[in-house]
Amino acid sequence: MPADTPDAPEPDDARHAEKMAKKKAARDKIMATKTEERGLVIVHTGKGKGKSSAAFGMIFRCISHGMPCAVVQFIKGAMSTGERDLIQAHFADLCEFHAMGEGFTWETQDRARDVAAASRAWDKAKALIRDPAHRMVLLDEINIALRYDYIPLDEVLAFLRDEKPPTTHVVLTGRNADPRLIEAADLVTEMELVKHPFRSGVKAQPGVEF
Amino acid sequence: MPADTPDAPEPDDARHAEKMAKKKAARDKIMATKTEERGLVIVHTGKGKGKSSAAFGMIFRCISHGMPCAVVQFIKGAMSTGERDLIQAHFADLCEFHAMGEGFTWETQDRARDVAAASRAWDKAKALIRDPAHRMVLLDEINIALRYDYIPLDEVLAFLRDEKPPTTHVVLTGRNADPRLIEAADLVTEMELVKHPFRSGVKAQPGVEF
Repeated sequence: MPADTPDAPEPDDARHAEKMAKKKAARDKIMATKTEERGLVIVHTGKGKGKSSAAFGMIFRCISHGMPCAVVQFIKGAMSTGERDLIQAHFADLCEFHAMGEGFTWETQDRARDVAAASRAWDKAKALIRDPAHRMVLLDEINIALRYDYIPLDEVLAFLRDEKPPTTHVVLTGRNADPRLIEAADLVTEMELVKHPFRSGVKAQPGVEF
Repeated sequence: MPADTPDAPEPDDARHAEKMAKKKAARDKIMATKTEERGLVIVHTGKGKGKSSAAFGMIFRCISHGMPCAVVQFIKGAMSTGERDLIQAHFADLCEFHAMGEGFTWETQDRARDVAAASRAWDKAKALIRDPAHRMVLLDEINIALRYDYIPLDEVLAFLRDEKPPTTHVVLTGRNADPRLIEAADLVTEMELVKHPFRSGVKAQPGVEF
């Protein structure tokens, strides 16, 4: 869970202890009301970095817990290869990985081919999600395919509502998430770009960007 | 790199190809100007999820590239154990891991102990960053320790400016990043909470939260 902090630091030790004791009691009370386990629809969107990385963090958590999971990559080249290589080299038994996309749309310049690739990726995604063995399925950069109407949003929303097994988590990443997808999701994080070194001439570097 | 999309989808195939060709030319031109390699100061902040996970994504990228790296955890319990367990079980040779914190401050309720733990964590962090073998050092939840004045911000800023080796990336996570840290950083992402299932009674679940 994300950490929480009070609105102002408190230097006095006794008051600090008292304040923190109150905070703990309030927090324990709130957490006791959280009892439901449910497969979530999770969206990472926004123009900032970290949408796919944070999703892969959840995939690594699943792997660590021995929970079978799967990744479908809708736009090849959109994702860093580092995490993918690591999964394929070490954890292929727990995590299926399917790189289905055809590259950035501005690299291919061929809409018909992009639509066909996105449709194949979505078919694979549906099969993976329908298999209840998978506890989490990551649809990486699917928001880009939805944004260009390569796959129909209505169909994706209906599938998530009607066919997703109740305990399966589905993670959808990519900027420009549709407001209807955000409305349908349980957990939405917007990664906001505050500052990026490309703007001052620094190139993409291993470890950071890929 | 994050993917980019135009402002409106374009259904017509020929116009799509033309538009994408222009986009590719513009992008290629911009990328050609990005030539500098430099160790970055990276900050993940905000109230949303994914700050630590996205940082761990970069650590996994480093591991995948065979780049030695290290993690110092300033607030024990603030982080999911999944990524940590995975690193310690499989990649301990490439990534040193130090869990130094004493738990959330509202769990310990003992400021003097928290200050001592944070100081030890910062000493360890300095030693790891000074060692040029480490290509990336993650200071997980250090912003919380800074926020409570457990470690002096001035000292951290001076160290990053004067003592960080030029090719080492340092990643600092945690909500409420100080504006002076954001000013000093090269790459800053704010994770914004759009929607969270705790609010509707769903509990923390393996794979998602830990």
